[in-house]
Amino acid sequence: MNEIQYVRPEEIEQRSFAIISEELEKQKIVLNKEQEMITKRVIHTTADFDYAKSLYFSEHAVEKAKALLRQGADIVTDTNMALSGINRRVLARFGGEAHCFMAEEDTAALAKERGMTRASVSMELAAKIPKPVIFAIGNAPTALLKLYEMIQEQSFRPAFIIGVPVGFVNVEAAKERILTTDIPCIVNRGRKGGSNVAAAICNALLYELVYELERRE
Amino acid sequence: MNEIQYVRPEEIEQRSFAIISEELEKQKIVLNKEQEMITKRVIHTTADFDYAKSLYFSEHAVEKAKALLRQGADIVTDTNMALSGINRRVLARFGGEAHCFMAEEDTAALAKERGMTRASVSMELAAKIPKPVIFAIGNAPTALLKLYEMIQEQSFRPAFIIGVPVGFVNVEAAKERILTTDIPCIVNRGRKGGSNVAAAICNALLYELVYELERRE
Repeated sequence: MNEIQYVRPEEIEQRSFAIISEELEKQKIVLNKEQEMITKRVIHTTADFDYAKSLYFSEHAVEKAKALLRQGADIVTDTNMALSGINRRVLARFGGEAHCFMAEEDTAALAKERGMTRASVSMELAAKIPKPVIFAIGNAPTALLKLYEMIQEQSFRPAFIIGVPVGFVNVEAAKERILTTDIPCIVNRGRKGGSNVAAAICNALLYELVYELERRE
Repeated sequence: MNEIQYVRPEEIEQRSFAIISEELEKQKIVLNKEQEMITKRVIHTTADFDYAKSLYFSEHAVEKAKALLRQGADIVTDTNMALSGINRRVLARFGGEAHCFMAEEDTAALAKERGMTRASVSMELAAKIPKPVIFAIGNAPTALLKLYEMIQEQSFRPAFIIGVPVGFVNVEAAKERILTTDIPCIVNRGRKGGSNVAAAICNALLYELVYELERRE
């Protein structure tokens, strides 16, 4: 384990996924084919095999998210960190853009004025984007709660929710709320998640699309 | 657990840290006072209590890192994600800047030409910064290996290393290499880590400095 193996840069990822597959097999975890590459990329990003058990996918969630991205859906994140982790070059190839409204001046001012979190205000701003939006929430439970509220009030319908905030206050409850809606989603149940996990899920979806395109060519 | 509690935005973090402290107590984990806030912020970022056991600190690592930041040291990361997670406003307050050379054109060209990873080339570029540098490595074991090589050759001496790459290929071995040097460091042993963890450690150090400043004022 403590010897350095020489691995060509372009092979490191492939080798990593092979190790992840072996380990899952050892743990007798069989992943659903449609979800497999998403779960594996999350484990690749965290080295945490707990995700193989805690990631929840609504019915055909992966196919639905891929269809949205293929049609040029945008992605909205709740941190600049998730934003910078998403492969925006690949997203743009399909016509999508990624946004994060957290650091904008309007967001801070409105949040202060209304005693809300910036994340919650960000969701209202995102709801104005005039095309289908995939929400990739890796940090703020209040972002999920705001989405839930808008869905309940029927004032806005997110096209898809990646609900993977991390944390200790209202995080589990906010994720469970999303599971009671009919919005297609990928949610990590429990406390774990993060901006890195949100970005990993977006990238896993995008890389599947690229792989499919290249196989076809 | 699944009820939403109303918590004022500014209190969410405080409440989270209280829950983390309780849980550590329940698990009978006693953290070293100097290291405590670093470990807790990593748990806050990951919801993963394993870090309480796997984080390694060289002697007075936290005091040494804080002294460097207080004197205006720069931070170099190996991902744009870690870079965007670091509170650069606070870093600038002490005279420091954060850099990431991964996405620069030179880096890609040099890496291709020399069959090296971009992370490895990035470290060579970072070694040219004419002031003390804290390396915050959350992704690429090859970044740590390049730093190790330069330390061994005595061609460069990093002021401090935060060595928390995540992964399956050469990650553990690269971290262990750093522990054999006399460079002050914070390293997460094992496979786990990440850009989020690297940024969390930097921010924990910075927030301690701010807290100390404000207590003094």
